[in-house]
Amino acid sequence: MTRAELIKEIRSKKTFLCVGLDPDIEKIPKHLLEEEDPIFEFCRHIVDATAPFCIAFKPNTAFYEAYGLSGITSLEKTIKYIKQNYPSHFLIADAKRGDIGNTSSMYAKAFFNRLHADAITVAPYMGKDSVKPFLDFENKWTIVLALTSNEGSNDFQMLQTKGTELYKEVLKTIASWGTENNLMFVVGATKADMIDDVRAIVPNHFLLVPGVGAQGGSLGEVCKHGLNKDVGLIINLSRSIIYASNNEDFAEAAAAEAQKIALEMATYL
Amino acid sequence: MTRAELIKEIRSKKTFLCVGLDPDIEKIPKHLLEEEDPIFEFCRHIVDATAPFCIAFKPNTAFYEAYGLSGITSLEKTIKYIKQNYPSHFLIADAKRGDIGNTSSMYAKAFFNRLHADAITVAPYMGKDSVKPFLDFENKWTIVLALTSNEGSNDFQMLQTKGTELYKEVLKTIASWGTENNLMFVVGATKADMIDDVRAIVPNHFLLVPGVGAQGGSLGEVCKHGLNKDVGLIINLSRSIIYASNNEDFAEAAAAEAQKIALEMATYL
Repeated sequence: MTRAELIKEIRSKKTFLCVGLDPDIEKIPKHLLEEEDPIFEFCRHIVDATAPFCIAFKPNTAFYEAYGLSGITSLEKTIKYIKQNYPSHFLIADAKRGDIGNTSSMYAKAFFNRLHADAITVAPYMGKDSVKPFLDFENKWTIVLALTSNEGSNDFQMLQTKGTELYKEVLKTIASWGTENNLMFVVGATKADMIDDVRAIVPNHFLLVPGVGAQGGSLGEVCKHGLNKDVGLIINLSRSIIYASNNEDFAEAAAAEAQKIALEMATYL
Repeated sequence: MTRAELIKEIRSKKTFLCVGLDPDIEKIPKHLLEEEDPIFEFCRHIVDATAPFCIAFKPNTAFYEAYGLSGITSLEKTIKYIKQNYPSHFLIADAKRGDIGNTSSMYAKAFFNRLHADAITVAPYMGKDSVKPFLDFENKWTIVLALTSNEGSNDFQMLQTKGTELYKEVLKTIASWGTENNLMFVVGATKADMIDDVRAIVPNHFLLVPGVGAQGGSLGEVCKHGLNKDVGLIINLSRSIIYASNNEDFAEAAAAEAQKIALEMATYL
């Protein structure tokens, strides 16, 4: 998916919501456990229910990998289902990969060519040759962790280096390896005031923002600091949407929650 | 596997070699392509051939994941094969994972409980709550990337922070989250002289050392700087062993190469 296509989707649907798919067998509604593939059934219903209110889906690969072969089957079915039924939705494989060059190339092929994901999340620690292989795919996106939304982000990301925080050095350096057309950054919503500093370094890049909802970040604050002329934000919510209810009405509850967020988003556009 | 068991294995076999399994369908011997599961057949033969000369195997998950479901099947079969036939070998899942707490927990369960790996490699960028869930499993090991062997390691790992390089701060901080009994570090062999600095921070921890062989690091230099009273080194070689030949004699060639390394290792013990 190109940047222009992504922006067009956001403008026409008036939402920049990404629904994160973190399917946990212990949290999904009990009645789904009778299905042959509960994880896929759960995701399929969530996708169908929330698709009108979001422009992206983000399967978190860990939640599928935890179930081994059957989980990987569920992941592949989920991705295929989204691509077939919602081809204009942006599909992010939240895999946080990053390895030496030849290994990153293997991952890139797996997620972009075989699974047809539009984007993959990547960890920066191993540097250029671990990130670059992902950037070599046309109309595909690399989303690098810069400032994450978890408590542990303080441990290394906030260390001072070259007179600034490490995450800013990561932003600056990695921005030089790609373009606004193939590179985004993960910037957590729990530190909304720091998004001004992020925008000073990458004014035009899209940011993938976790941390609104269950993790406590404010949608209004993130928009205030993060929106740019092309919107430039994809805001992810997972748990607060997909587990809005754990009864038979889970899909309707997820839709209602997604719609509520989308309506608020529309007011900021 | 406990630290004492690992040390005992190394002492009795007089080797601290880890054979890295990076199976690439384009590199494995052509005659294996006729098998039902060429990736598994390749790995099985390499494992059988090299087991006498090594104390660890390290399947690199990317190389399996690249082939989707069939690759994951090959990975699970490979791990199961090793655990069943070589239970005293240390099994490292080279997955380089790292995510927010609940997600890291999912990965830990997947690799430790379901796949029965002894260890998993983990990326440090997201900090404590991304690493800690892996440390909570008894007799399992977390191997955190500190100083990697690739060129890109210069991009961030060598940045100055708190008057020292970032990788040293990573070592120091993460060493405080675990113990010598559940935590190791990845330290690349391509910078053998820097292992002195590493040992000044973590004198007793085991180090998993990639970069000897195809990547150009010197075994002798690494041992000179890295060995401690409990050996403290697991040195990984992948390509130079597993692709020593791509003909029908590939297993014998791998064994010969592994034996050569093991014999050299014995001289340093």
